[in-house]
Amino acid sequence: MPDLPLPPGSTIGVIGGGQLGRMLSQAASRLGFDVVILDPEENSPAGRVSRGQVVAAYDDPTALTVMGRVCQVVTFEFENVPAASMETLAEGGALVAPGPTALKVAQDRVEEKAFLNAVGAPTVDYHPVDSLDDLKAGLERLGTPAVLKTRREGYDGKGQVWIKSAKTAAAAWAAIGERPAVLEAKADFVRELSVIAARGWNGETAVYPLGENIHSGGVLKTTLAPAAVDAKTDRRARAIAKAVLDGLDYVGVIGVELFDLGDGVLRVNEIAPRVHNTGHWTQDGCVCDQFEQHIRAVAGWPLGPTTAHARVEMTNLLGDEVEQWSKLAAKSDARLHLYGKAEARPGRKMAHVNRVKNL
Amino acid sequence: MPDLPLPPGSTIGVIGGGQLGRMLSQAASRLGFDVVILDPEENSPAGRVSRGQVVAAYDDPTALTVMGRVCQVVTFEFENVPAASMETLAEGGALVAPGPTALKVAQDRVEEKAFLNAVGAPTVDYHPVDSLDDLKAGLERLGTPAVLKTRREGYDGKGQVWIKSAKTAAAAWAAIGERPAVLEAKADFVRELSVIAARGWNGETAVYPLGENIHSGGVLKTTLAPAAVDAKTDRRARAIAKAVLDGLDYVGVIGVELFDLGDGVLRVNEIAPRVHNTGHWTQDGCVCDQFEQHIRAVAGWPLGPTTAHARVEMTNLLGDEVEQWSKLAAKSDARLHLYGKAEARPGRKMAHVNRVKNL
Repeated sequence: MPDLPLPPGSTIGVIGGGQLGRMLSQAASRLGFDVVILDPEENSPAGRVSRGQVVAAYDDPTALTVMGRVCQVVTFEFENVPAASMETLAEGGALVAPGPTALKVAQDRVEEKAFLNAVGAPTVDYHPVDSLDDLKAGLERLGTPAVLKTRREGYDGKGQVWIKSAKTAAAAWAAIGERPAVLEAKADFVRELSVIAARGWNGETAVYPLGENIHSGGVLKTTLAPAAVDAKTDRRARAIAKAVLDGLDYVGVIGVELFDLGDGVLRVNEIAPRVHNTGHWTQDGCVCDQFEQHIRAVAGWPLGPTTAHARVEMTNLLGDEVEQWSKLAAKSDARLHLYGKAEARPGRKMAHVNRVKNL
Repeated sequence: MPDLPLPPGSTIGVIGGGQLGRMLSQAASRLGFDVVILDPEENSPAGRVSRGQVVAAYDDPTALTVMGRVCQVVTFEFENVPAASMETLAEGGALVAPGPTALKVAQDRVEEKAFLNAVGAPTVDYHPVDSLDDLKAGLERLGTPAVLKTRREGYDGKGQVWIKSAKTAAAAWAAIGERPAVLEAKADFVRELSVIAARGWNGETAVYPLGENIHSGGVLKTTLAPAAVDAKTDRRARAIAKAVLDGLDYVGVIGVELFDLGDGVLRVNEIAPRVHNTGHWTQDGCVCDQFEQHIRAVAGWPLGPTTAHARVEMTNLLGDEVEQWSKLAAKSDARLHLYGKAEARPGRKMAHVNRVKNL
């Protein structure tokens, strides 16, 4: 195991070559680190701005062994890295962060909810579903509307279906492929918030101001940050973030999505054990953004400051919305972040823009 | 010639793989561009964060032809690219910015001073020196102390010698290798300022707030920005920057070093046709830093805003000063920028730190 903190010149591995990996790589290089990406797509967005890329599947044992040997620490831009891959990485000699517990919990919605409620970070009511009978029992207990989600591998609204009436239970069960799932009660929320937080190897934590999020079709459209929240809500969100981080013995940046039920009452929607789309505003609102913060955490550096020096409205540019770049480039308060993706497929995250206010 | 503005996904070439090329590359990738570096050193600081690097001498004709073909626009991190290289690049089909005029002028201190005075950007008195007799005549006219500088290829205090008495003329002439030179009168300045400015293909200009610079041993140590200057000095500096940019029909970011003689009287010390060490503060003081500004300019994008949202004290970390990284990483107002250089040779620019105030 390498000594911490890792000095500049060390190599950081990132599993996943998309935009999150790209922005992690850019932050790491600003701190003098070399970065190696693992991604099956040649010349991935992250690979193109990094020292190197291993072109292989995320679970390719040889590739993982190489990553473990070349890198002093390996981290992830997405949470669906198999547990076995983690072991192979660790055998290569690298530190791995976040660790296996965080991944295991975040990969399974039922385990995640059980964990969250156990550490005092309450979720909506839920019911594990392994069969149509389970689903029917769940609908009876939770009522409708409710949302049925696959336990594993869902993101951005994929692998989930809303159930408005118990009569459609069988159709919903078929729609998600009759896979292990969880039924969630509808949260009666006034808005969606998120909190981005970090924890170091030494247990030090740092929490950014809350963001208020607007989703459209299951995909994040806009984050406003710092969100206008009362002191009680702010305290509660920070306490939840800290409970989650400590409960997972976490190292790195985590995103915690929250339903704001009003009067300082929050429910955790889900956690993402990685840098998070709702934290992109920190790039232009904070001295130390979430990407640098994650690199600092996994490399054993002191965590950076999390105070905001500006209000930011972050908007995702999906699919051909990226063609707005030339108009946005002319706005004096707009900071563009483009991901270097060639194909603007419908709904694909191509870029984001931070509109910076109150400077 | 490619159409402007260059869309994201285009390739930008950068001649020179040091820290300036590295930070240009990082800014370009943030805007969705691919970057290819030309540098003789394998895995140069810039090459390590770019799509690719051509490993060859800066004047290698084949390498330049390749750069010209692969890139839609080629720019530089340093100004000593031979004029012939520029032609080879242009023949490859790429735009080249800044253009040949700016390079030609900036490569020769006598041409530079003649140009500056001609466009109303006054320099100190100077005397071209091609022989010991020229030097003696110059010392008679300008008096002592005076500084003798080689006409070409000097930087960071290299290739120059101070003459305190006319008796040492021969020694000084020998010290600079009896090369074509220029003798400059001593400027009786109260402080050193600089102005970073940009100009687009369409003639649009943008000027950043002034920086106040502290040099040590001919090398920049610290820039404080925005500098505390009166309105007259500010106006004068901006007028000088604009005169220089327009006079050169310039495209890109330029650094203009100024002697502040007091009462709004300025003399241009020298110009650097590239992003400039005294502009590093913009990374943490402005929405659009000098690196993004340069990329915007050469790619034909609208220029970005130049207002400062913070006061910044930029300090270079030279040689083993880079070992302060771990101490600086713990300061809540410090933003570190490390260049990924392996060897901390004495005096080598290894990193800089922006201390951000008044957030």
